[in-house]
Amino acid sequence: MQNFEYRNPVKIVFGKGTIGKLSDLITKDKKILLAYGGGSIKKNGVYDQVVKALKGYSVVEFAGIEPNPQYDTCMRAVKVVKDEKIDFILSVGGGSVLDAVKFIAAAAKFEGPESWDILTKNAKIKSAVPLGCVLTLPATGSEMNTNAVISRSKTGEKLAFSSEQVSPVFSILDPETTYSLPESQVANGVVDAFVHVMEQYMTYDVNSPVQDRFAEGILKTLIEEGQKVMTDPKNYEVRANIMWAATMALNGLIGQGVPQDWATHMIGHELTALYNIDHARTLAIIMPAVWKHQRQQKGAKLAQYARRVWDVQTSDDNKAIDAAIQKTIDFFRGLDIPTTLGDVDLTPEDCKKAVEQLRNRGSKLGERGIITAKQVEEIFSLAA
Amino acid sequence: MQNFEYRNPVKIVFGKGTIGKLSDLITKDKKILLAYGGGSIKKNGVYDQVVKALKGYSVVEFAGIEPNPQYDTCMRAVKVVKDEKIDFILSVGGGSVLDAVKFIAAAAKFEGPESWDILTKNAKIKSAVPLGCVLTLPATGSEMNTNAVISRSKTGEKLAFSSEQVSPVFSILDPETTYSLPESQVANGVVDAFVHVMEQYMTYDVNSPVQDRFAEGILKTLIEEGQKVMTDPKNYEVRANIMWAATMALNGLIGQGVPQDWATHMIGHELTALYNIDHARTLAIIMPAVWKHQRQQKGAKLAQYARRVWDVQTSDDNKAIDAAIQKTIDFFRGLDIPTTLGDVDLTPEDCKKAVEQLRNRGSKLGERGIITAKQVEEIFSLAA
Repeated sequence: MQNFEYRNPVKIVFGKGTIGKLSDLITKDKKILLAYGGGSIKKNGVYDQVVKALKGYSVVEFAGIEPNPQYDTCMRAVKVVKDEKIDFILSVGGGSVLDAVKFIAAAAKFEGPESWDILTKNAKIKSAVPLGCVLTLPATGSEMNTNAVISRSKTGEKLAFSSEQVSPVFSILDPETTYSLPESQVANGVVDAFVHVMEQYMTYDVNSPVQDRFAEGILKTLIEEGQKVMTDPKNYEVRANIMWAATMALNGLIGQGVPQDWATHMIGHELTALYNIDHARTLAIIMPAVWKHQRQQKGAKLAQYARRVWDVQTSDDNKAIDAAIQKTIDFFRGLDIPTTLGDVDLTPEDCKKAVEQLRNRGSKLGERGIITAKQVEEIFSLAA
Repeated sequence: MQNFEYRNPVKIVFGKGTIGKLSDLITKDKKILLAYGGGSIKKNGVYDQVVKALKGYSVVEFAGIEPNPQYDTCMRAVKVVKDEKIDFILSVGGGSVLDAVKFIAAAAKFEGPESWDILTKNAKIKSAVPLGCVLTLPATGSEMNTNAVISRSKTGEKLAFSSEQVSPVFSILDPETTYSLPESQVANGVVDAFVHVMEQYMTYDVNSPVQDRFAEGILKTLIEEGQKVMTDPKNYEVRANIMWAATMALNGLIGQGVPQDWATHMIGHELTALYNIDHARTLAIIMPAVWKHQRQQKGAKLAQYARRVWDVQTSDDNKAIDAAIQKTIDFFRGLDIPTTLGDVDLTPEDCKKAVEQLRNRGSKLGERGIITAKQVEEIFSLAA
C-alpha cells in the first residue's frame, strides 16, 4: 500500500423521505440559490418537496443547467450569486447540476482575472460559497467528493478541477427520486459508477486487499443491481443499492493508497467534447479498448477481476482475462450501452481530432503515464 | 437498506514516516497535552519522533494512561488541561490512550456537576478540547470514530460514550510503529477489529450488498494478514493492511443502513470489568457462544459468512454454519487467543455477577433487543 492522506467531511443523508430534512441542514438565515437542470424535477415531484422543505427561506432559482454543464451557463449563475448576495447554493439534480454548482461556488469567490483559469491553469481556489445537494441521479459520485467537470462548447473542451473548498456540506440521497429517470440515464449511471471503480482498481497490484475487495464489492453490486433495475425500476432496494454503490465508487475511499488510471475518462471526455456522446457511453467504448491495449500491464489485476467479480473458474490467466473482458462488454450491452465506436457511428479516423487535442496537451495517461497520443490512436483502433 | 446519516470528518494520514507531519497538522500557537501510556513509546522510538516533530511547540506531558483507562486517571489529566490552559490534546498510543483522551477532552469542557454523568447518564457534550492521534496499535478503530470506553475499578464498571465533539481532528497511522508490539497485543488487535466487523454484519439481512461485501472484505483481510503477522512481524505490507482494516472496521461506514448487534461487546465489557480479562479475549470467548445461542436468528448471515469469507462449499446451510463457527474459533486459537471461559480459568458460575449487572441495568442486547440477563446466563453456559 502506498502512503495517503484522506479526509471526507460530506454529511450523507440517505433514504426515502429525507428531502424534508433540508431545513435541519441549512440555517434559516441563509439566502439560497436553488440550482437545477431542464425541469425534470418539476415533473417527478422533487421540486415540490424541496420548495416545501425550504418554506421560510429566502430562495432564488437558477434553472437550465445542461448535461455536460457549460462554462457560459455557470458564469451567468455566478452573476446571480454576486448580484443577489447568495450565501448557500443548493444543487437539485444529477452530477451535471452539482458539478456546475461546484464551479459556480468557486468562481463566485475567485479573485483571478478569468474563472476559466480554474480549469485550464489549475488556479488555486481559496474559498467558495457553501453548497449542498439533493441528488436525483446516481452516477458521478460528485455528491461526496471535491471534483467537477465543466465544458466549453466554443473551444470543444471538457475539463476537470478539484478543491476541498467545493466539497458539499451535505448530500441528500433519496432513492425514490430516481424512479422516474429515463432508462438510458439509469444505464449510463450504472456504467459511469462501474468505470469509476475500474479507474482506481484496474491497475497494478500494490498489496492493498481492503481497497481491492471494496472495489470488487461495488463492482459486483453494480452488476447485480444494474441488471435488476432495468426490469424492476420501482424496486426501492435496487435503487438504494445502486445509489450507495455509485457514491462509494467515487468518494475517494477505494482509491487511497493505490495507483489510479483515469485514461478511459481522459479519452472519453474528448469524445464527449467533440461529438456530444453521453459521458458513460464514451467510457463503455474506450475502457475495453484500453484493457486490450494495456493487457500485459494490467494482466494480474484483470485475472483477479475475472475470478473474484465474474467467478471465472479457469486457472489459465489468458482465458480468464478474455472471459472478463467479454463479460464486461456483455454487461454493458445488456444495459443497452454501446461498446464500440461503430455503435455510435464513428470510425477511428473520426477520432483524430481527439488524438490531436491530447497531443497538444502533451498528455501522458494511465497509472504509469505511458499512454501518449500515439497509444490513444491505437486505442481508438481497438475500439473500432 | 435502512435510512441513515453519516459524516466522518477525521483526516487520516497513513504510511511510514508520517509522524513528522504533526507540525503541518497542528498550528504553532497551540499548547499541547501529549498523552501516552506506560512508556512503550519511549522504547520503540515513537516518543522521539513525536517530540522532534513538535519542536517549537509548547508541550505538557501526561503519562501513565493504563489499558482499560480509568476514570480517576482521566480526571487527573482534566485538572492538568484546565491548570495549564491546554488547547490541543495529542494521543500517542493505542485505543486505550485515545479513548482516555476523548473523555479528557470532553470532561475538561463539561459543565455538569460530575463528569461521570457523561458515561452513566448520557449527558450531552456541547464542546471538547480538539484532539489528534498518533496510533501505535491497530485494534479499536477509535482513531476514526466518535466513541470511547472508560472504566472505573472501584465500581467494577466499564462504560461507553459517543460524541461528534471528540472526533479526532486527525489520526496518523504509521504501520512501522506497530513492529515492536508484543505478539499478544497484535493478536488482540486483530480479534478486536474482527469482532467489530461482526457486530455490524452478523445480524439479519436488509438487502445491503455494498455494506455486506465491505464487511466481508475486511474479515478476509484480517484472517489472511492476521495469520501472516504472527510469523512475519516486520512485514510492512502486512502491518499496513491490518492497520487500515482495523480502522475501516469501526469508522462507522460498514454499519450504515444495517442493523447492529453489540451483544458480544456488552457482555465482554462485564468480564473485563470483573476479572480484568483483555477486551479482545472476552470477545473471542463470548462471540461464538452468542452465535450458537442466536443461531436461528442469525442463520442466513452465518451461512453467507461461511460461503463468502471461508469459502465453505456445501449447499447445506447447517453444515456451512457449523464449519464457519469452527473456522472462526480455529482462527482465534491460531492467534493464541482463548475461546472459552475455561481457557481463562472461569466457569459460568463465576459470571453470575456479570449477569446481575446486566439485569440491574435492564439490558436488552443484540440487533433485536431480545438478549436479556436470562439469555446472557445461557450464553455464558455455551461459552464454558
